[in-house]
Amino acid sequence: MPTKILLNEDEIPRQWYNLAADLPTPVGPPLGPDGNPISPDMLAPVFPMNLIEQEVSQERWIEIPEEVLELLYRWRPSPLVRAHALEKALGTPARIYYKNESVSPAGSHKPNTAIPQAWYNKQFGIKKLTTETGAGQWGSALSFAGALLGLEIKVFMVRISFDQKPFRKVMMETWGGKCIPSPSDQTQAGRDVLARMPDTPGSLGIAISEAVEAAVTDPSGETRYALGSVLNHVMLHQTIIGLEAKKQLDKVGEKKVDTVIACAGGGSNFAGLAFPFIHDKINGADIDIIPVEPASCPTMTRAPFVYDFGDTAKMTPMMPMHSLGHNFIPPPIHAGGLRYHGMAPLVSGAINDGLITPRALHQLECYEAAITFARTEGIIVAPETSHAVAGAIQEAKKAKEEGKEKVIVFGLSGHGLMDLLGYEKYFAGELHDYSLPEEDLQKSVKESTEGLPKP
Amino acid sequence: MPTKILLNEDEIPRQWYNLAADLPTPVGPPLGPDGNPISPDMLAPVFPMNLIEQEVSQERWIEIPEEVLELLYRWRPSPLVRAHALEKALGTPARIYYKNESVSPAGSHKPNTAIPQAWYNKQFGIKKLTTETGAGQWGSALSFAGALLGLEIKVFMVRISFDQKPFRKVMMETWGGKCIPSPSDQTQAGRDVLARMPDTPGSLGIAISEAVEAAVTDPSGETRYALGSVLNHVMLHQTIIGLEAKKQLDKVGEKKVDTVIACAGGGSNFAGLAFPFIHDKINGADIDIIPVEPASCPTMTRAPFVYDFGDTAKMTPMMPMHSLGHNFIPPPIHAGGLRYHGMAPLVSGAINDGLITPRALHQLECYEAAITFARTEGIIVAPETSHAVAGAIQEAKKAKEEGKEKVIVFGLSGHGLMDLLGYEKYFAGELHDYSLPEEDLQKSVKESTEGLPKP
Repeated sequence: MPTKILLNEDEIPRQWYNLAADLPTPVGPPLGPDGNPISPDMLAPVFPMNLIEQEVSQERWIEIPEEVLELLYRWRPSPLVRAHALEKALGTPARIYYKNESVSPAGSHKPNTAIPQAWYNKQFGIKKLTTETGAGQWGSALSFAGALLGLEIKVFMVRISFDQKPFRKVMMETWGGKCIPSPSDQTQAGRDVLARMPDTPGSLGIAISEAVEAAVTDPSGETRYALGSVLNHVMLHQTIIGLEAKKQLDKVGEKKVDTVIACAGGGSNFAGLAFPFIHDKINGADIDIIPVEPASCPTMTRAPFVYDFGDTAKMTPMMPMHSLGHNFIPPPIHAGGLRYHGMAPLVSGAINDGLITPRALHQLECYEAAITFARTEGIIVAPETSHAVAGAIQEAKKAKEEGKEKVIVFGLSGHGLMDLLGYEKYFAGELHDYSLPEEDLQKSVKESTEGLPKP
Repeated sequence: MPTKILLNEDEIPRQWYNLAADLPTPVGPPLGPDGNPISPDMLAPVFPMNLIEQEVSQERWIEIPEEVLELLYRWRPSPLVRAHALEKALGTPARIYYKNESVSPAGSHKPNTAIPQAWYNKQFGIKKLTTETGAGQWGSALSFAGALLGLEIKVFMVRISFDQKPFRKVMMETWGGKCIPSPSDQTQAGRDVLARMPDTPGSLGIAISEAVEAAVTDPSGETRYALGSVLNHVMLHQTIIGLEAKKQLDKVGEKKVDTVIACAGGGSNFAGLAFPFIHDKINGADIDIIPVEPASCPTMTRAPFVYDFGDTAKMTPMMPMHSLGHNFIPPPIHAGGLRYHGMAPLVSGAINDGLITPRALHQLECYEAAITFARTEGIIVAPETSHAVAGAIQEAKKAKEEGKEKVIVFGLSGHGLMDLLGYEKYFAGELHDYSLPEEDLQKSVKESTEGLPKP
């Protein structure tokens, strides 16, 4: 059996999978400031109408435009790799596969949606996109997509990541993007936060506020906002990951997958790999599907399912989701992409329906797993991805204890070559684990969502 | 036609190509301190005997061990990519292909020889390897190989690169390697240089001296030295690049290649892609084969063919090669991997035989080309690789002027995600071009090689 399972370009999936068509309990609609469901028109200043249509679509399968496929071919289909060396090191009877999204030019899964989002915006006549970025993966990916499609890109980057990863800015600039630390003085939302908390490390919630404001206040009308996670159409675009993985498993005769694991911050990486397997599960397949999050930002495992805003300044609609509260500022862990207060409504819905089983892990265990992975499989993963690696190692050890030949598939969402500061601090013994005290969690949720509608 | 031309694992070349078997004018043997040809036994404290046998082999085809192939499958065969977007941006009738070696976990072509070198050393009972690194690509690759094969790795890194790229060290450490800035106080060679030039930016020549000394003075006898370029066996291991590329071109029906381009520092990246095409050329094919170097370190285009040492402290044998002199310290350009005073004897021989046509380019043109490439093809290349990109763009523009449908293949030796400082300085206007004055060149060659034997 080959180490890497490849697909040719003509084997790429030609439709995305939309979980909204199949979720047993539909999640509620996004709500406007008045508490009423928001209409597509109300989103028009923020997103182009073709993406809004995808956002609200209930179609199960949505065609991938040919021109989008042509651009994805730069790195897709991505390899599915059998982790022989990791299996051997663990002495597990499990067969471990990882879907390697780090091979994209931006180094993560994010271009899977950056490319179609840029393409749809361009189709709609948009010239410029604004966005936020946490770890920098999304800002890089959108800058990459902007270069390929000729759109101007402006990225508000969470300050702590901006400071920890100065080269992310250069990466975005090389693709022609502009990158600004957030909170910034370029928006009202940013100025308000700076006035209250001049030394804040920033958060995705704040950066989203800034990016949305910058888009909707551009008088030219040629600017829209692009979000790298959370929304339905973002989940949709990422499902190409899992759809490819299923074809690849099929190709090597793996009839039954036992466990699917991916890290989840806003949910798009997890959704990308997992939603096609959730589709199978809804249709009767017996699969454990595990999104992994940091224990320091336990949105899925501990936060209530509420209506909440996606951002700090309440620029976004209210969405039904597991949320720590839009004012929550997570501790400055190195997995910047997992520092988000909320969780995609579709992922939240899958939790509520019992289709998936979230797990929270501490960062020291995750770094340890990442180093085991680097020294066996050879790839240095992103700190976010280390959560999936740690989850996969836990499951492989369990399979060993149980003496079961399980098939485990996990998502390698990105490489960590831009995130080596975290590894350096881990080696230096400077990283610590952190659990969010329950009373802080309750307080944050209460302060953020009191008086808001209930799902 | 697909964008990426892939090979399955069972299509990988199973033999390396040895140009030494075919070079019309054989280059002379390495010489010992007494001026006589060095015997394999004399190299035994430095290299394991199985690699020494490869080093002196005259066999045209050398079998790749099955276990080495199994390890290469992590990322090989690497993709050959049609640069549609670059072609379009240039408006050229040329068809441009690039062989993408940046997909290896270490991010460059270097693991192609790191893996077999580590494997042969392990077979020979060696436990520990020392080496030098310029830009950091080789030190990373050997650390990666050491992790996969369970060898201890110690890397002497040229100080200027160590300072410019602090995260290279972390990368090596993540794979379990140790990385020390060179010159260091850990070797006599290092201490001597520091005494003379405490503020030296270092050079590959100095770092090689340190690494060789550290290997041969280890009293356990279980340490050897590994070199990432220059030597025949290193060129040999890299030929898998060009052998794959030829199969891939064949697969898409490209019957005739007009131009092959790769950057050359010590020569291994260039040899890897080009030697299999030189084989064709020796057998009558009409191909322009162009190694590209920086104008600031013009080994191939301006340096004489002499016997010279590979390192500053004269620890290595004398080799017949184009050399700027073993005491030459190149200006601190960002393409650290191209800052070497010499050139592989086999590449030097191919120049002398008129089989290849070296070209020197200035760094500003190379960065400009790299940015064009990033904004069309999407990949941020290493500063070394930017020389190949610039060469390919020159050739594609020439094809446009001539109205010729040329087929151009170039080597994308590595990505630049660890080298973004150079891009940052380029954007800030802080980089300048530099030509080595002829009298400095003459002086350096004279001082380094006076009294040495002539080829």
